[in-house]
Amino acid sequence: MRALAEIQVIPIGVGVSVRREVIRAHDIIRKTGLTTELHAYGTNVEGDLDTILHAVKAVHETLHAGGTTRLTTALKIGTRTDKESRLQDKLFDPLSS
Amino acid sequence: MRALAEIQVIPIGVGVSVRREVIRAHDIIRKTGLTTELHAYGTNVEGDLDTILHAVKAVHETLHAGGTTRLTTALKIGTRTDKESRLQDKLFDPLSS
Amino acid sequence: MRALAEIQVIPIGVGVSVRREVIRAHDIIRKTGLTTELHAYGTNVEGDLDTILHAVKAVHETLHAGGTTRLTTALKIGTRTDKESRLQDKLFDPLSS
Amino acid sequence: MRALAEIQVIPIGVGVSVRREVIRAHDIIRKTGLTTELHAYGTNVEGDLDTILHAVKAVHETLHAGGTTRLTTALKIGTRTDKESRLQDKLFDPLSS
Repeated sequence: MRALAEIQVIPIGVGVSVRREVIRAHDIIRKTGLTTELHAYGTNVEGDLDTILHAVKAVHETLHAGGTTRLTTALKIGTRTDKESRLQDKLFDPLSS
Repeated sequence: MRALAEIQVIPIGVGVSVRREVIRAHDIIRKTGLTTELHAYGTNVEGDLDTILHAVKAVHETLHAGGTTRLTTALKIGTRTDKESRLQDKLFDPLSS
Repeated sequence: MRALAEIQVIPIGVGVSVRREVIRAHDIIRKTGLTTELHAYGTNVEGDLDTILHAVKAVHETLHAGGTTRLTTALKIGTRTDKESRLQDKLFDPLSS
Repeated sequence: MRALAEIQVIPIGVGVSVRREVIRAHDIIRKTGLTTELHAYGTNVEGDLDTILHAVKAVHETLHAGGTTRLTTALKIGTRTDKESRLQDKLFDPLSS
């Protein structure tokens, strides 16, 4: 099943800066082959739901293996049966609204 | 990997009342055998991360098969390596704080 | 405007355990007079939207004043015009579903 | 207090397409003068926390006044005391990671 998702990974206990872990998480997601769009509050992805869920699991496993003790991920998943979801279709020109 | 999670399913396009779909989603999650706690903003679960992710996928598949055209799920996932996470350990007596 | 909400406060950089800050946040919310329900992934509240938003601001201000360097809050807000929202109305008996 | 935030507005009961309401919400947020970045899962904003919270309230009030019966908003708020948060500072070049 095709899905859009937003993945935000928050490492807890690594200090005030979480940049190293966030970059690592984005890198893991990107290497799955999913279409990705990075923004200030997470990584938006487009692709197969199984791949998306597997990517989230891989992020937790890899960051824990790298020494991060605690992780919380906020994930939003969107699916629909009436048309194929695309990240770009969710955007619009705000200046024309 | 053991995890805690919160699963909130929002059907879009079924009307102002979403109760039927929300009950169905909770039922699917509960039948996986995960420990569940229902609250006003979702179902908290405790158990294996694979089972949790599989439950989320099953909710999307089952509700779409039942006629819901569009679904968005908000999922929070917590994992840690220093101790076993339990839903009950995250609670405390607010009156004693 | 009456609203339901879920408030989850995540202190970043205080260490792996965030319990002290989470208890403090819940306490601040509870003292606003809003109806509150604590669960493993946050505090659900029912009441006036202004009071809810003010509580969120007070949590950030108070925890920062107490030494927490970085905070992220996940907030869900629900409003509707067809009937008065109540936390208890969002629940149902899962065993009867 | 300066803050970063992500605001995602989900109208419930308006049908499968929610584009009209989402555009309206983004427009309300943009007109507050906050720095905004639109993406597929919401609008990221940078600015004063009071202005951000006021914008969220204005979205609910304006969309309800325009006929939307039910709204749920997912809001993430980030504040920190060690440096000034900027949306652009949260980004990085994923190809260089």
